[in-house]
Amino acid sequence: MAHERVPDVCPFCTVVAGGESEWNAQTDIVFRDDETTAFMCAKWWDAAPAHVLVVPNDHYENVHAITDTALSAVYRTAKLIAAAIRSTYDCEGTSMRQHNGAGGGQDVPHFHVHVFPRRVGDRLYERNGETKRTAADERAPFAKRLRTAVTSS
Amino acid sequence: MAHERVPDVCPFCTVVAGGESEWNAQTDIVFRDDETTAFMCAKWWDAAPAHVLVVPNDHYENVHAITDTALSAVYRTAKLIAAAIRSTYDCEGTSMRQHNGAGGGQDVPHFHVHVFPRRVGDRLYERNGETKRTAADERAPFAKRLRTAVTSS
Repeated sequence: MAHERVPDVCPFCTVVAGGESEWNAQTDIVFRDDETTAFMCAKWWDAAPAHVLVVPNDHYENVHAITDTALSAVYRTAKLIAAAIRSTYDCEGTSMRQHNGAGGGQDVPHFHVHVFPRRVGDRLYERNGETKRTAADERAPFAKRLRTAVTSS
Repeated sequence: MAHERVPDVCPFCTVVAGGESEWNAQTDIVFRDDETTAFMCAKWWDAAPAHVLVVPNDHYENVHAITDTALSAVYRTAKLIAAAIRSTYDCEGTSMRQHNGAGGGQDVPHFHVHVFPRRVGDRLYERNGETKRTAADERAPFAKRLRTAVTSS
């Protein structure tokens, strides 16, 4: 059953279920509702650090597998997150990216949308190789600020 | 009124209204319904040529302005387009990108989602600067193949 949650197998199902992994901590969580969870991505791009992932709470591998209802819920949450990033970070825009399959460079096979802060001249794409893995305590202060922004929006 | 269609001003409103501009032709159109239009992007990235834009038929500047209903409709169509690209092109994945504001590099202030074919090792991001502007007759055969794929899905 593709849509059952698989916390023992999938790191995003794990964080949705309240667990933690080497990549995701509960202090990463920015927002959740019945259908979606938004949390800090552990991998930061140097050109746009401290971005957020939005996932459906149920497990769908990619855009081909996800239901229209879950897809709508994910982007509704991504819209909230983009507004929170805009109001919280010193940035002049946002970008959303969503990848499917090996060709798309999808690294975790649980549908997810990246919501990035963007700044004029950040060269996020050209600097795609410049990334680092972060520790949970680096991410937690950003999650806290974003939670406040989402709650007050 | 932010949501009225402005075909004299906005190139995407123009194509939605059945018109053409130096960038968009009616032969670019892959799919349309009451809420959305999908059409070939005139700008091609060398790493992933012949990609598709999906827009709401009403004019919303960005993710902050668009209604949840229109946002859902756009991504429902983007899902159809991703499936059509996967079945039509020789590719191993797809990517969706959506940019907001000057920092995000948004070039046309009418909400739009790019749906790209992706191939393993295409280096779409690192090769971000390698683009070209295409003529309508280069794009038309791709639109035709994608229309067939969407209709038969």
